Amino acid sequence: MTFAATILTLYPEMFPGPLGQSIAGRALDEGRWSLETLQIRDFATDKHHTVDDTPAGGGAGMVMKADVLGAAVDAALEKQPGAPVLAMSPRGAPLTQERVRSLSSGPGVTVLCGRFEGFDERIFEGRPVEPVSIGDYVLSGGEIGALALLDACIRLLPGVMGAASSGDEESFEAGLLEYPHYTRPQIWEGRRIPEVLRSGDHAKIAAWRKAQAEIATRSRRPDLWERYSGAPDQSPSGAQREKSKDE
Amino acid sequence: MTFAATILTLYPEMFPGPLGQSIAGRALDEGRWSLETLQIRDFATDKHHTVDDTPAGGGAGMVMKADVLGAAVDAALEKQPGAPVLAMSPRGAPLTQERVRSLSSGPGVTVLCGRFEGFDERIFEGRPVEPVSIGDYVLSGGEIGALALLDACIRLLPGVMGAASSGDEESFEAGLLEYPHYTRPQIWEGRRIPEVLRSGDHAKIAAWRKAQAEIATRSRRPDLWERYSGAPDQSPSGAQREKSKDE
Repeated sequence: MTFAATILTLYPEMFPGPLGQSIAGRALDEGRWSLETLQIRDFATDKHHTVDDTPAGGGAGMVMKADVLGAAVDAALEKQPGAPVLAMSPRGAPLTQERVRSLSSGPGVTVLCGRFEGFDERIFEGRPVEPVSIGDYVLSGGEIGALALLDACIRLLPGVMGAASSGDEESFEAGLLEYPHYTRPQIWEGRRIPEVLRSGDHAKIAAWRKAQAEIATRSRRPDLWERYSGAPDQSPSGAQREKSKDE
Repeated sequence: MTFAATILTLYPEMFPGPLGQSIAGRALDEGRWSLETLQIRDFATDKHHTVDDTPAGGGAGMVMKADVLGAAVDAALEKQPGAPVLAMSPRGAPLTQERVRSLSSGPGVTVLCGRFEGFDERIFEGRPVEPVSIGDYVLSGGEIGALALLDACIRLLPGVMGAASSGDEESFEAGLLEYPHYTRPQIWEGRRIPEVLRSGDHAKIAAWRKAQAEIATRSRRPDLWERYSGAPDQSPSGAQREKSKDE
């Protein structure tokens, strides 16, 4: 089955962009996923095709209109009723690898890309639209977030990475950062590949890698480490919320 | 001064990509930032231009060679010695708005984009390269992460958003998610813009927005809320405290 991506955007020409090349581009050519963009402006009803207006209550910038967004989302839902509708927003739930895996095993995804100051909040009440964030920083629009979300999903689709690289040992899959990698040359500028990796002892190598993954997670990501090691967690994390919602 | 971005990548044709349009594209045309890509493959020294090799110790995929990466980073450092070198990696420190702001006030940034299983770890010891992650998910390469990082920086450059939108009230700037936005129509499908936003009372609107930002942060991002409020949230609601203080 083809994973169908529908993008609602004011900049359809940004797609497929980087997803037209390399792994994702090959998968697109092979029909492993499909891409459709809908121009949000086409759903404006006035003769100027207005998609935004000034914020109620004052303030800088412009807000995307609920009526236009609603019509655009309706069109996407009609095309693909089974796909979740995600709106890229820094106010959303943080995207996790777990969520990516769940999305990539579904029929596809509709992504609503904002611009300006953001969406009229009523779109989240009036339509089944879920705000999702790719990280704790602010972008000039949702398009690059949509590219990140799609790239993460596409590489997990059957046949895209090949059977050898299932992604099972990657960062976040076991709740840990990945272990460090090394390759030839054996010695680079006096720095040697760790001896254990040349031992040929698979059990020893697996144990070393796991220990390295734990050390990296603990020192770099105490937040992930706390969840992994089972220490008391006072508040449900975004990832855990996502999980229970998806299951 | 122009913010100079140097990208080390196997896919230079992915740039500027979406950054060639809209706000970032305009800023590029106006010379507010500059973009240079370096093809990592050009720094391979064998006749096949090999950039990767099998992982020491076994496992799926390929690892980017330290000697090639080292030469590529050296070339970037020679061009722009003052810019930090960030490598996009899920093992890196999570990118934050604070870091984005700090980068955007500097001379620029060099971004090393990985592909395959990742970088030979020795590059992080042998060169001043800092791993940075855009979120807790895995992409097929560093390029889309680099686009996200650059977009976040570019919009903060002087003159790019204009004085009216300084970004001061955005998500993460005060340690909170942003308040919800509304715009006309006043009533959409029976849903009304909150009355306070029509009051014209600026102090009341500011207090309402702050309370809304706190409520959203607390319910959606307990991790941010904990940092903001200084302690795991216990009882009297932070939002209510703020509100009564402001009234």
